Amino acid sequence: MSGGRLIIRDARPEDLPAVVRLIHDDQIGRRRERTEEPLAEGYLRGLAAIDADPRNRLVVAEVEGEEGLAGCMQITYIPGIAMVGGERAQIEAVRVASGLRGRGIGARFMAWAIEEARARGCALVQLTTDKRRVDAARFYRRLGFAPTHEGMKLILRDVEDRGG
Amino acid sequence: MSGGRLIIRDARPEDLPAVVRLIHDDQIGRRRERTEEPLAEGYLRGLAAIDADPRNRLVVAEVEGEEGLAGCMQITYIPGIAMVGGERAQIEAVRVASGLRGRGIGARFMAWAIEEARARGCALVQLTTDKRRVDAARFYRRLGFAPTHEGMKLILRDVEDRGG
Repeated sequence: MSGGRLIIRDARPEDLPAVVRLIHDDQIGRRRERTEEPLAEGYLRGLAAIDADPRNRLVVAEVEGEEGLAGCMQITYIPGIAMVGGERAQIEAVRVASGLRGRGIGARFMAWAIEEARARGCALVQLTTDKRRVDAARFYRRLGFAPTHEGMKLILRDVEDRGG
Repeated sequence: MSGGRLIIRDARPEDLPAVVRLIHDDQIGRRRERTEEPLAEGYLRGLAAIDADPRNRLVVAEVEGEEGLAGCMQITYIPGIAMVGGERAQIEAVRVASGLRGRGIGARFMAWAIEEARARGCALVQLTTDKRRVDAARFYRRLGFAPTHEGMKLILRDVEDRGG
């Protein structure tokens, strides 16, 4: 059922093709990512910008003893004024490899991210999920997230699909 | 109707009490901010953290020739992998002074933020708005934002109200 131990670590440059494949591998990502190698420059620049910023982390998960990445997510720690200067942990680009779903990996991965945010003293964890991903919203509700907000996007650059 | 010219600039430490009052002055903020002076330490730390980070800006608007702040917002430029490494501009804590609403200030302020994001090369602008703020969602739709996402929050710290 729950499989082996989950190893969670910051992504390295050599993980990038696998991360792009994870992000590409769903009905929404498929229309707006480019998996051909060598990887498009934009991906390398994106990872470099994340790595250069202490408030951003690209994190990957592996199942001990198994090949390949089990999942990825990005965490951004956002300072702020509201809630008496509370910091927010924002999570984006959460993916679990399609062949590994149903083993509780996503829940363990998210629980880890929530614990990291708590240890850092964040006031809240926030994320948005595409309304077309009905299962995802249910998954986050089970983890304690409340769907209190409308998540709104305005696309500026011509990508083939809406963002997020 | 549309009033004087809008002056938009980064917040200075001396703006902080007025920014906290703006954030406090609505049905949701009222329950989770503290406006008594001297300001709670957390606010000062929040502004210092924003100022120290080149990816975060706390911005205020003034109407030329009028006293006091007309509005505030925070912008966070988030690097990423998705959308071929597209950067997102995220907007939080948008407020227009209650006595100045209905003059198009919010729309001009948001148009400025969208133009800043476009000039920077961001792939999209995103925000979440509390579902209880029905007028706010309508306002953002008029500006071109699409409510494609569920905005989910998990409160970690004991504040008196849910975040966002």
